[in-house]
Amino acid sequence: MSLRVFNGCSAATMSAGEGYGLVENAAIAIEGGRVAWVGPAQDLPPEYADCPATDLGGALVTPALIECHSHLVFGGDRAQEFAMRLGGASYEEIARAGGGIRSTVKATREASNEELLASALVRVDDLLADGVAVIEVKSGYGLTVEQELRMLRVARSIEQHRPVRICTTWLAAHALPPGYEGRADDYVEEVAIAGLRQAHAEGLVDAVDAFCENIGFTPEQVRRVFETARELGLPVKLHAEQLSDLKGAVLASEFAALSADHLEFLAPEDAALMAKSGTVAVLLPGAFFTLRETQLPPVEALREHGVAMAVATDANPGSSPMSSLRLAMGMACTLFRLTPVEALAGATRNAASALGLSDEYGSIEAGKRAELAVWQVQHPDYLSYWLGGDLLRGRIVNGEFHER
Amino acid sequence: MSLRVFNGCSAATMSAGEGYGLVENAAIAIEGGRVAWVGPAQDLPPEYADCPATDLGGALVTPALIECHSHLVFGGDRAQEFAMRLGGASYEEIARAGGGIRSTVKATREASNEELLASALVRVDDLLADGVAVIEVKSGYGLTVEQELRMLRVARSIEQHRPVRICTTWLAAHALPPGYEGRADDYVEEVAIAGLRQAHAEGLVDAVDAFCENIGFTPEQVRRVFETARELGLPVKLHAEQLSDLKGAVLASEFAALSADHLEFLAPEDAALMAKSGTVAVLLPGAFFTLRETQLPPVEALREHGVAMAVATDANPGSSPMSSLRLAMGMACTLFRLTPVEALAGATRNAASALGLSDEYGSIEAGKRAELAVWQVQHPDYLSYWLGGDLLRGRIVNGEFHER
Ligand SMILES: [Zn+2]
Ligand SMILES: [Zn+2]
Repeated sequence: MSLRVFNGCSAATMSAGEGYGLVENAAIAIEGGRVAWVGPAQDLPPEYADCPATDLGGALVTPALIECHSHLVFGGDRAQEFAMRLGGASYEEIARAGGGIRSTVKATREASNEELLASALVRVDDLLADGVAVIEVKSGYGLTVEQELRMLRVARSIEQHRPVRICTTWLAAHALPPGYEGRADDYVEEVAIAGLRQAHAEGLVDAVDAFCENIGFTPEQVRRVFETARELGLPVKLHAEQLSDLKGAVLASEFAALSADHLEFLAPEDAALMAKSGTVAVLLPGAFFTLRETQLPPVEALREHGVAMAVATDANPGSSPMSSLRLAMGMACTLFRLTPVEALAGATRNAASALGLSDEYGSIEAGKRAELAVWQVQHPDYLSYWLGGDLLRGRIVNGEFHER
Repeated sequence: MSLRVFNGCSAATMSAGEGYGLVENAAIAIEGGRVAWVGPAQDLPPEYADCPATDLGGALVTPALIECHSHLVFGGDRAQEFAMRLGGASYEEIARAGGGIRSTVKATREASNEELLASALVRVDDLLADGVAVIEVKSGYGLTVEQELRMLRVARSIEQHRPVRICTTWLAAHALPPGYEGRADDYVEEVAIAGLRQAHAEGLVDAVDAFCENIGFTPEQVRRVFETARELGLPVKLHAEQLSDLKGAVLASEFAALSADHLEFLAPEDAALMAKSGTVAVLLPGAFFTLRETQLPPVEALREHGVAMAVATDANPGSSPMSSLRLAMGMACTLFRLTPVEALAGATRNAASALGLSDEYGSIEAGKRAELAVWQVQHPDYLSYWLGGDLLRGRIVNGEFHER
């Protein structure tokens, strides 16, 4: 059984409770790809005293980061639309020029599997450079049964090319594709639900999501998708309250959703329901920034009710064109007033919860996977404080140190 | 004489005028480290037909980026202060805990030359990864004659360690150090002016700057510094109108300043004076973002009067903890509504003007230095659109291609 010790480091264990769970001059014993022990080096139990040890030279070790909300498999990009909008083009002009989500749907459908994978891997590499070990990837740009399945197959295939765990989320109820105008209920039946059954049968689905919004799907439509998920034994999550309060988080809580995401327009009192159902609040400051929103998510109410808060990039070509989870953490601090502790918990422990992976990821604790990030910084506050820069010294993947 | 051609690329030449000056299927001929010719590959003059040619595989070539406003030599960091503020600490509590600019002055004074250089090089490397070839570095955390000189000596020494050109700016009139409370005029005489003469005598100064603000120095004090600069034949720049309108830009224009920087509170009509004096408006969206300012710089007035706009990181440990010029470009678009063309001009051609280097840097044109950035993107809009990510394929430094 492979047994090894890392020392000469400080460790932000992020174990439940307040703060970073910081251990100065720490040792971390790893056995069979799992953390066996973590604590002050001088307390290392004798059974690990003779293990091969790696001195990390004063680095800071944290749990590997977890990206719990991304749309990073897609075709094309929307840089031209971004430029048109800044050049003063109206939404109509952009739509007429083929812009908006439909342009991404078109480019995604037209891309080969190889092209979709290659462009996704660029963004995956960006996340790996931020110390990420788990990435959630949603479908939602195919919008036919076959194209949605294909997106998740491409997402799953990422694991064959990079040392990362992929969680797939079925998001066919993302937008109404051409051909279904005025027939959203039909789309939900024929694609979102029928496709979900098929995708699940193929083993392609880890969770089920929908875009609950006036410009998306109604709570009633989302409910039908969620009922199918429940029948199939799949957990749900929801894009909720980004632009208006349709009580998506209430619906999500009723289904004991893993997470409700965005939440700028969440009514503070609805945080109580999320707390009760253990639904994580996934905050997405990149979309808030890009769309220049002004309505802030009710962070104080989430804190008061004890709702776990996660932070993610929402990486997508339209409303959140970004691939740095550390940048999302920094934005969560400056824009949403999260503390750096909350931002790191949001990208580790609570992000793991938002994916139903808290038994295995998200903190440095005995029994959890030895997936760790090794940083050349003095203190974990620095990870949210400094924007940009290449702070990662390496990753511990399945217990092995990969220096960059 | 070393003669070579790069082809198999598109080139955003950024030559004066509207737009990117985009050349599809371009060739760039380089002789003795200077651009000799640029244009469509099929028009390559016969004298370059037999040169050694490098095919860039469809990459996009732009002028190397230019960071025209940074404070990247400093000791310590202010991550703890960032966390305290987000944790609800008042400015008084932070001051009592030793926070604010004084903590950076203390840490800078206490750091050895080697420590200052090593920490600066981390940030320099971040900028190089964004395709930067020239970095302006200001003094301003020493605040004694000897310590300010030392900061510029450290800044100059960066050139011995990295392939980058450093422009040094004397910014002793940045903040009032302990011991000068209530004696700002004395500080200006004894440190800002006396030190400037000494620094100039040592050949350490490329430009002279000051922080003109209610919490900084008055226009009258700045004038005295500028008069010394004029006497010494040194160009000036000014931190102006960041938090209030003290008519710093008017003063800067009177001295034909290279640039006036920040400018959120610039009166729109004062843009006319800047246009007349050829003073560049350096926009610093990282500080705007970090300080959560709401007053936007008068971009429309700057455009109307034809003031050249540059974009920079303002990299510093307090109000703009960031080291990505591409992130500053993206923020300039989303927060200040610059177009991606303006953002790239702001980080190339206009940034060169803000440093008095427009004869040598900032565009791909015959006669200018062959300092180029090679990007793995399809279109230059992408550089401002996508936040994060590692888009640089390599740099052409003094005419030689350095692949990453
Ligand atoms: Zn999303
Ligand atoms: Zn500055």
